[in-house]
Amino acid sequence: MPRGVIERYRTLLPVTRKTPVVTLLEGSTPLIRAKRLEKELGQKGLELYLKYEGVNPTGSFKDRGMTVAVSKALEEKARAVICASTGNTSASAAAYAGRAGLRCVVLVPKAKIALGKLAQALVHGADVVAINGNFDQALRMVVEISRTRRITLVNSINPNRIEGQKTAAFEICDDLGVPDYHAIPVGNAGNITAYWKGYREYRAKGKISRLPKMIGFQALGASPIVQGRVFRNPKTVATAIRIGNPASWQSAVRAREESGGLIDTVTDREILSAYRMLASLEGIFVEPASAASVAGVLKLSRKKFFKKKRIVCVLTGHGLKDPDAAFKQVSPPRTVKAELKRVLEAIL
Amino acid sequence: MPRGVIERYRTLLPVTRKTPVVTLLEGSTPLIRAKRLEKELGQKGLELYLKYEGVNPTGSFKDRGMTVAVSKALEEKARAVICASTGNTSASAAAYAGRAGLRCVVLVPKAKIALGKLAQALVHGADVVAINGNFDQALRMVVEISRTRRITLVNSINPNRIEGQKTAAFEICDDLGVPDYHAIPVGNAGNITAYWKGYREYRAKGKISRLPKMIGFQALGASPIVQGRVFRNPKTVATAIRIGNPASWQSAVRAREESGGLIDTVTDREILSAYRMLASLEGIFVEPASAASVAGVLKLSRKKFFKKKRIVCVLTGHGLKDPDAAFKQVSPPRTVKAELKRVLEAIL
Repeated sequence: MPRGVIERYRTLLPVTRKTPVVTLLEGSTPLIRAKRLEKELGQKGLELYLKYEGVNPTGSFKDRGMTVAVSKALEEKARAVICASTGNTSASAAAYAGRAGLRCVVLVPKAKIALGKLAQALVHGADVVAINGNFDQALRMVVEISRTRRITLVNSINPNRIEGQKTAAFEICDDLGVPDYHAIPVGNAGNITAYWKGYREYRAKGKISRLPKMIGFQALGASPIVQGRVFRNPKTVATAIRIGNPASWQSAVRAREESGGLIDTVTDREILSAYRMLASLEGIFVEPASAASVAGVLKLSRKKFFKKKRIVCVLTGHGLKDPDAAFKQVSPPRTVKAELKRVLEAIL
Repeated sequence: MPRGVIERYRTLLPVTRKTPVVTLLEGSTPLIRAKRLEKELGQKGLELYLKYEGVNPTGSFKDRGMTVAVSKALEEKARAVICASTGNTSASAAAYAGRAGLRCVVLVPKAKIALGKLAQALVHGADVVAINGNFDQALRMVVEISRTRRITLVNSINPNRIEGQKTAAFEICDDLGVPDYHAIPVGNAGNITAYWKGYREYRAKGKISRLPKMIGFQALGASPIVQGRVFRNPKTVATAIRIGNPASWQSAVRAREESGGLIDTVTDREILSAYRMLASLEGIFVEPASAASVAGVLKLSRKKFFKKKRIVCVLTGHGLKDPDAAFKQVSPPRTVKAELKRVLEAIL
């Protein structure tokens, strides 16, 4: 079974034997070959692997960083944690804080958070406050509150979050070796920052001998890094990356430059097409934001972008996080009488 | 990373080198010590472990059986699979069939299936037909259809399902050794059957030297095995075990008798109390049915039932499967203006 990312990569993380480990045995997630999707790409001979982070305990990659951030908060005698969130961070913070016996305060943008994620924060016992504003405003406020009060910020500005999240890069290298391209959705840009840090550290340790090109994808309606400007009112169906002023903007640009990669846009239509293909061809249900990495690879492959063959796409969160998004993509089931004849008519 | 249950336990499963393996790298799920819940038990000194099956790819334990059932269906040149479902089976069948390129037909009882599960079956491309009837009626019909047409039944009547599911018992033994008590929700009774088969086979292979007592729990309003009668109109908030005439009734009774265990009832109130405790004390979000195992252990510990200390509770499915159940247990978040002063008032 998974040991949890702190136990698995202890020597590469900012913990000591004194750190109380708060874990839900996150990490060690599947890397799944996507042979049916490969046939849909615009180039032959590519190998596509999906890092399915949706099977972490709270259903997203955030658990990797949260185990480190909450363990460190506990070590430092914090009594509460706080975060702003489009949903996944709050779900994870609430779960780990609950497990640690810490209070958790969450600020979410009203009506812009997926159903499942809100349910998670509430049921794990967080104090959830919805603000009439967007994620970026919520983030500014929690930063201010954590500066002036004894309450630990657990957004990805907290370096312990990035430390934990970099372990996903270690896992990819351990399972597959170094990919040629690492494709990833970019919202607040903490995750691309974390993966790039992970790859570089693994090379510095001699575990790998080269680095992948980082290729990030923002939704067109929330693409501040690509456009080079803050989006005051970001818009996309991919709620988890609906962010107009990313906290890790500069380090995302560094990952792109240092790796010789790119950060590009994908439309909501491209995102939802990739979302449906993942579910129907590969049996993998993700939240819309996760599909941005696959949408980007589909787009680039049609332009014959790839010079080498091995691509890893990060799928950041589980589709169950956002059931409403799924219902908008499908027809409702037919209802028939409980009679064999009626059922046969319906299915044949 | 997880290898998938077929690769991990190949020699103990009905597959050959010719079997095409359809996998989402299911299994190898966490076994989590529940120290905060242990303090809530009515007996001191017990060790409580949670087998968190909600982190399987489609969010429930069903994936273990489905990888075997769909792989065998593909080997046998089936072109479609069919099942009746309260939700988890259909989600898993749809995902694995999609991955295999097989058609999937699903019969669900109308209006008695959790939101997330229905979204899954639809987005994975299954033909979903809702019937004006209950699960037991749906099951009778798919059995009839699979008998007369070339379409493989993938309910747990299909022995390949039980074969795959038994691997969870192997994992518990590999991770912890043999528990003294194995607590499990009982609905259609395929899972208690599978675990008991797994433990017995592991003993026969010399991997373990003794067996646990199997303690199963049905919801009071859907407790046919405990009451010894079919429930025509089963009722419980735990939709995944809302079954009035279990397909594996006799083998569940055998597991109870042979292990010297018991099958008991828990009320919806006890289930929901355990559900909230799991989320807030342990950071583990489950669907209500999963909490039946913990509710049962809480109930028995208050009666000082346990003579030995080591208990494993199976948590069958993720809480994200049923967000509505969560919202009924919590207060909605407060909404305030996006101003620091208002936020501070709300959280302090």
